[in-house]
Amino acid sequence: MSAFPPLRHLLLRPRLPLSLQPFAPLLRPSTAVPIRRRRLRLLSSSSSSTATQDSADEVAEPPPLATGKETSVVDVNPPRGTRDFPPEDMRLRNWLFQNFREVSRLLSFEEVDFPVLESEALFIRKAGEEITQQLYNFEDKGGRRVVLRPEITPSLARLVIKQGKSVSLPLKWFTIGQCWRYERMTRGRRREHYQWNMDIIGVSKVRAEAELIHAIVLLFERLGVTSLDVGIRVSSRKVLQAVLQMYSIPEHLFMEVCVIVDKLGKLSREEVEKELMQAGVLLEAVKGIVEVLSLKSLSKLEEVLGSDSEAVADLKRLFSLAEHYGYSEWITFDASVVRGLAYYTGIVFEAFDRAGKLRAICGGGRYDRLLSTFGSDDIPACGFGFGDAVIVEFLKEKGLVPDIARQVEDIVFPLDVELEGPASKVVSSLRRKGRSVDLIEDKRLKWVFKHAERINASRLVLVGNSEWQRGMVRVKNLSTREEYEIKIDELC
Amino acid sequence: MSAFPPLRHLLLRPRLPLSLQPFAPLLRPSTAVPIRRRRLRLLSSSSSSTATQDSADEVAEPPPLATGKETSVVDVNPPRGTRDFPPEDMRLRNWLFQNFREVSRLLSFEEVDFPVLESEALFIRKAGEEITQQLYNFEDKGGRRVVLRPEITPSLARLVIKQGKSVSLPLKWFTIGQCWRYERMTRGRRREHYQWNMDIIGVSKVRAEAELIHAIVLLFERLGVTSLDVGIRVSSRKVLQAVLQMYSIPEHLFMEVCVIVDKLGKLSREEVEKELMQAGVLLEAVKGIVEVLSLKSLSKLEEVLGSDSEAVADLKRLFSLAEHYGYSEWITFDASVVRGLAYYTGIVFEAFDRAGKLRAICGGGRYDRLLSTFGSDDIPACGFGFGDAVIVEFLKEKGLVPDIARQVEDIVFPLDVELEGPASKVVSSLRRKGRSVDLIEDKRLKWVFKHAERINASRLVLVGNSEWQRGMVRVKNLSTREEYEIKIDELC
Repeated sequence: MSAFPPLRHLLLRPRLPLSLQPFAPLLRPSTAVPIRRRRLRLLSSSSSSTATQDSADEVAEPPPLATGKETSVVDVNPPRGTRDFPPEDMRLRNWLFQNFREVSRLLSFEEVDFPVLESEALFIRKAGEEITQQLYNFEDKGGRRVVLRPEITPSLARLVIKQGKSVSLPLKWFTIGQCWRYERMTRGRRREHYQWNMDIIGVSKVRAEAELIHAIVLLFERLGVTSLDVGIRVSSRKVLQAVLQMYSIPEHLFMEVCVIVDKLGKLSREEVEKELMQAGVLLEAVKGIVEVLSLKSLSKLEEVLGSDSEAVADLKRLFSLAEHYGYSEWITFDASVVRGLAYYTGIVFEAFDRAGKLRAICGGGRYDRLLSTFGSDDIPACGFGFGDAVIVEFLKEKGLVPDIARQVEDIVFPLDVELEGPASKVVSSLRRKGRSVDLIEDKRLKWVFKHAERINASRLVLVGNSEWQRGMVRVKNLSTREEYEIKIDELC
Repeated sequence: MSAFPPLRHLLLRPRLPLSLQPFAPLLRPSTAVPIRRRRLRLLSSSSSSTATQDSADEVAEPPPLATGKETSVVDVNPPRGTRDFPPEDMRLRNWLFQNFREVSRLLSFEEVDFPVLESEALFIRKAGEEITQQLYNFEDKGGRRVVLRPEITPSLARLVIKQGKSVSLPLKWFTIGQCWRYERMTRGRRREHYQWNMDIIGVSKVRAEAELIHAIVLLFERLGVTSLDVGIRVSSRKVLQAVLQMYSIPEHLFMEVCVIVDKLGKLSREEVEKELMQAGVLLEAVKGIVEVLSLKSLSKLEEVLGSDSEAVADLKRLFSLAEHYGYSEWITFDASVVRGLAYYTGIVFEAFDRAGKLRAICGGGRYDRLLSTFGSDDIPACGFGFGDAVIVEFLKEKGLVPDIARQVEDIVFPLDVELEGPASKVVSSLRRKGRSVDLIEDKRLKWVFKHAERINASRLVLVGNSEWQRGMVRVKNLSTREEYEIKIDELC
């Protein structure tokens, strides 16, 4: 460092130009108030509360601060249940999404996207799903019922119908988008998350499910997750369908029964049985359903449903394909997997942590009947949603989150304020050559070195007076500590 | 092609499994109804309408269809003013965003993100901006006033305050996010667009503006746009500030005057003058303001404002830096540039098509006082927003939108349904080697070749019975038309 010319005119902190001082902003408070963070008021009554979602929410959350005018400090937190992504969080998110995209590329899926704001009509379903009970919905200024979408599949189905005969099936589409729900906030659950969706439209064979599960496995492998820690449970809605037929339960109860039965694990067995009976399922059938759902072996299932069962045939085909793909160790049959969405019709699956600490990491299935609920002819389809929340929780727990540092190539630092012109030339030339360049001014050299370390810069380019007069700049390679002068034109 | 074994069991279209037929979905219409598209009702009265936004909107837009239940066809269009992104549109968007990201990388900016749903309080400003008059706002179930953000800068300011002293200035942040407005729909204007934002926090010198404009120029160059077709107009809010001081106009009118004056070009000179007078500006001052805003030369500006004018000094510094960066030909001084956001305090700029057909392509400026309106100490800052709508319109007009095709590497096609296992092996092995693989089944070979052309596949891997028994597959290189057999393990 002693090789550098003496530093002049380097300010430790940027100065505000005086000119701006006479102009007080309209909304400025009389004195600068330090930022207060809102804290959750913990009321002794709230934990055992049986209040509705909204009132419970209001108990836990103070009213919003008054807006604008003479007041005061704006809440610096994003709306309750939502996230900011400062750079370090964004790097993690980009890393995860990059893996989503890369796996989608390996499977030759095409990316699509839909508005985060959708018509409420797309999500009105009667089966009592959690997802439709927690709609983040409202009326817009034109009196239309709209919703921040809770999931992406209905939008996808909408676009498939809209494109109509102009597209050639099968479609293999993926998307990464934000989904919303409005529920009482508990244990760090959020009101939004991002979800990777992969969907295959136009393939009726179990091959489609096998492909989707292949994608999920490839993703886990890329993230460093092994089948020792994570598994994928598989079943089929046709299992429940067969049981309902056995007990002559009317078809129109199918979706509702699926949604109720999916609560096993969250609710007690007794509560689920009660809900089933309230839905109109007779006690004998309830016992039958619960018994079948406890099965963990395909041969046992075959015993119960018979050898001509479609559910069994589908599942056998899937497990056979899994062997050929080479991901058998990831998947297990588990009749209790039903999934909470009403529209599934066939194979359903979910990834779970074998330690049993977390909610499902992802889930999906076949939904051959969704399009007709929108008034179109049906097309066989299946897909999955893979959120960004549980997987990151899991990766953090396992120490699998990589340390993703900033990656800047060059720092250009003029050693004198008079050299801002030459520094501009250097910066411009390096960027045109494709280098990532951070221009630093008005700092001490010591700060610049610290900064270089922080952002993993590989080179420091110092623009000094005497060098510049000779058409040179001084370069310090920050990994080798090598230092040299170079002609400006030769710098690349 | 004649070298291939005869094709068996290849179905032209996938079949629905019979099993699904007994299960009618709950919401299924009694008969399959063909998709109807909603059409805009064109009323003779609507074009000359002076109704408010909402009622005008309602006149032009039929009420939403009834939701769910026994009805009927869901509207296949996304909500009015929003977009779906089918694959071809998504490829274009990804290409554009990739360029945004690459330029941000060249400038060593870090990516951040914020919720699309924000507190309304963040956007309540009194200066009468278009952006705050068209808020897409509503009350959530908890009684909080929230908004689909119309712009990103206030969220960014919020996060800067939240991070407080934990971050080292300057910050150089970029983000690409969706922004919303609720306004009467005219001439294809939408209710949402995506916006690339770059912001520098903590640099008071004009260097920051010079860096931002460098980014914009680098982007244009990457997109194939030249300075013959696009320019960047530059001025400073300090010009208006100086004029207001000349005429002793009270400081609290500054923001409002800026917002009114920005309407020149949209409204007639007379209308703008009227609004200024309504705001409390005397006629003489109004004439003075309008006259200064017509200036197109820095030396003329210096004559009017005097040689010690800060506005002039800032602008001169910027033009000098532009010369060193090498982008002088892109920028011109134009005192009429004010920009419509209330919070700008210094240099403002906007990119425009020189043919004068389109709205501003992007715009930005210095906003040194925004943080104090949120109750924090001020930090000097500047930034710009660059939407995805106008630039794509411009690129299309200029024939600069690239033809971005799908890029799949391999198609794997089993020639017999019995070979679904071996095909799975091949697919799995190729994907593990990083190849993008489309598995096609149940199609005719002719379809496969057409499909291969459509998706730009480079190879077709045919899994045939006789080859497989010898541990081989047949490969057709689709660019060279070369055809050969290869051992499965050697395929890569």
